[in-house]
Amino acid sequence: METILSALATLDTPAALIDLPRMHHNIQRMQDRMDALGVRFRPHVKTSKCIPVAQAQVAAGAQGITVSTLKEATLFYADGFADILYAVGMTPGKLPQVLALRRRGCDLKIITDSVASATAIADFGRAHDEVFEVWIEIDSDGHRSGIKPDEPALLEVARALHDGGMQLGGVMTHAGSSYDFDTPEALSAVAEQERLACVHAAQRLRAAGLPCPVVSVGSTPTALSAVTLDGVTEVRAGVYVFFDLVMHNVGVCSASDIALSVLTTVIGHQVEKGWAIVDAGWMAMSRDRGTQNQKRNFAYGQACSIEGEVLQGYLLTGANQEHGILSREGSPDPDIATHFPVGTQLRILPNHACATGAQFPEYQAIAADGEIATWERFHGW
Amino acid sequence: METILSALATLDTPAALIDLPRMHHNIQRMQDRMDALGVRFRPHVKTSKCIPVAQAQVAAGAQGITVSTLKEATLFYADGFADILYAVGMTPGKLPQVLALRRRGCDLKIITDSVASATAIADFGRAHDEVFEVWIEIDSDGHRSGIKPDEPALLEVARALHDGGMQLGGVMTHAGSSYDFDTPEALSAVAEQERLACVHAAQRLRAAGLPCPVVSVGSTPTALSAVTLDGVTEVRAGVYVFFDLVMHNVGVCSASDIALSVLTTVIGHQVEKGWAIVDAGWMAMSRDRGTQNQKRNFAYGQACSIEGEVLQGYLLTGANQEHGILSREGSPDPDIATHFPVGTQLRILPNHACATGAQFPEYQAIAADGEIATWERFHGW
Repeated sequence: METILSALATLDTPAALIDLPRMHHNIQRMQDRMDALGVRFRPHVKTSKCIPVAQAQVAAGAQGITVSTLKEATLFYADGFADILYAVGMTPGKLPQVLALRRRGCDLKIITDSVASATAIADFGRAHDEVFEVWIEIDSDGHRSGIKPDEPALLEVARALHDGGMQLGGVMTHAGSSYDFDTPEALSAVAEQERLACVHAAQRLRAAGLPCPVVSVGSTPTALSAVTLDGVTEVRAGVYVFFDLVMHNVGVCSASDIALSVLTTVIGHQVEKGWAIVDAGWMAMSRDRGTQNQKRNFAYGQACSIEGEVLQGYLLTGANQEHGILSREGSPDPDIATHFPVGTQLRILPNHACATGAQFPEYQAIAADGEIATWERFHGW
Repeated sequence: METILSALATLDTPAALIDLPRMHHNIQRMQDRMDALGVRFRPHVKTSKCIPVAQAQVAAGAQGITVSTLKEATLFYADGFADILYAVGMTPGKLPQVLALRRRGCDLKIITDSVASATAIADFGRAHDEVFEVWIEIDSDGHRSGIKPDEPALLEVARALHDGGMQLGGVMTHAGSSYDFDTPEALSAVAEQERLACVHAAQRLRAAGLPCPVVSVGSTPTALSAVTLDGVTEVRAGVYVFFDLVMHNVGVCSASDIALSVLTTVIGHQVEKGWAIVDAGWMAMSRDRGTQNQKRNFAYGQACSIEGEVLQGYLLTGANQEHGILSREGSPDPDIATHFPVGTQLRILPNHACATGAQFPEYQAIAADGEIATWERFHGW
């Protein structure tokens, strides 16, 4: 621990820390679960946007990755990841980028949920002699995109692709509404709803004589709560790799599992108010207030000691761009300046790891022996 | 306009657009006001973090810049900006970086509001034969950092610096609470409170025989609402350069002044719900919900046509990482897919320009003739 503390003291703040033992534990936990359920696992790398993190996921057994932008696809492919699902609905204007990646050897799969896009994909593919692999997005919980498994549009989209000469790769869904629950029973129920919707869509396609090799589901809460995944071939999940306070509230991790934190330094006080001012504001934490309407509101983040131990009751209660306000919930701490003098380093656990990570061009990855590696992170589109 | 539209059609989405005629108008409006009030103007470049934007501010008459991170100081200095105020309280661990910048010729000024930091600055300065220029941060509205103008600590900090051999450069304050008001009367009152606090602090220092050449105040709302700035020598403001929906609600700009927008593309629909799905989610817009508790809640942003005309009632009502939900307030639009087919490009005005800009590695700056320049933006610390 002494080695880690002296290593952290050398870092400029704010900095995004990855606690590597926690991260590896999270990766192994998910992979073990997927292995036990008998499905492939395709992590969503939008959480980390970081090559060494994805390499650790693959080393543990992941097969392929999921991306949220074509920039991620481009950069991960450049580093040796070939089996990539771009899990945002395809729009015709992005097809030239997809074509270019596939022509360079990337096994990039795209998704759609409309006849308009499916037709555009097929037309563009035929015009360029390219057979795009397309998965159909299924709406399993009404939270965002996708075709409901019983809708006529499912077969229309599938036929537009299949008859248009494209490769119908399968169906995929994401039960984003799982973030709204916080009991094992409710989460298992959402997981089962997600599974049933996607499997049912696959059955409809197959019954119509259409191919549907892949049945892909997932979100961190449902992946960790599914009782059975019969009929599912692969699971996707992203935030589990770091976890965060939202996931803590959902109930799928403890605070001591959270592998991402923001290292910050105390820069001043307002003693009358019980405030310490730190150099992690919303630019470092992000503006994500994901716990605001959950059972426990962590404001802008949970304060921890430099060693990573939760400081019960001390939260980042306010944030400006480069200023955070650290204070004690309930009753102000009159000894705040004594407890946290100017120069004190602290770690802040984030509400939402995907959003907080995105504020940093790099992570500081801390191994168990205190060695720190700087890991680059992608930014932008 | 045709030229601009065909130029925008070539851009990958999401993209951060700067409407240059609007930006130059905003810059000129602020500079004219400062000239009329007889004060120097030191723009806060944390909003844009972009060299050409700051160059336009200086070209219009700004003297010096304000930064929120030492990375901004380093990169702006490398591009020829020498007169820099780092407007976040100095912590001892950052003094080596400040020293290195000053030794390279940067006229970097730092701030403090505590005896602990002032003493550390003076000790470090003397140990390295450096006379740091330090300004004292004044708390004019209780919203964050600073010493109240009547507190004994003001003179203690000043003496720790002055007697410690440092250069006491002046006093500065930021009335961040001005964002909470929305009438000209209330804003003028906050501006006057900001002025009085800072001028009073300066008078106390001078009465005690201490130097206080600079009296620096500012925020966008107070800068645009001050009736008099007697006793003030310079004003700082940041977000005015782009403006945003928060400033629109505060009442210091109209929607047609907002120079920053996010270019996005429609990727799908949920017609039953009246939703168009676009490729600008919270990763593009940021999680900033600054208008949520203002008189008009714009959710994640105001939709505009590709030409930049406000589409009344159409907001980005929801956002996931790379998905935005565009819908009509009040009653869902049953013809959403006809109004905004897949592939339609739209502009979204942001709640908070500083937060939205930070999500992008670059801006696409669009001139009146439709020419697009790509302007790099700093990221991280």
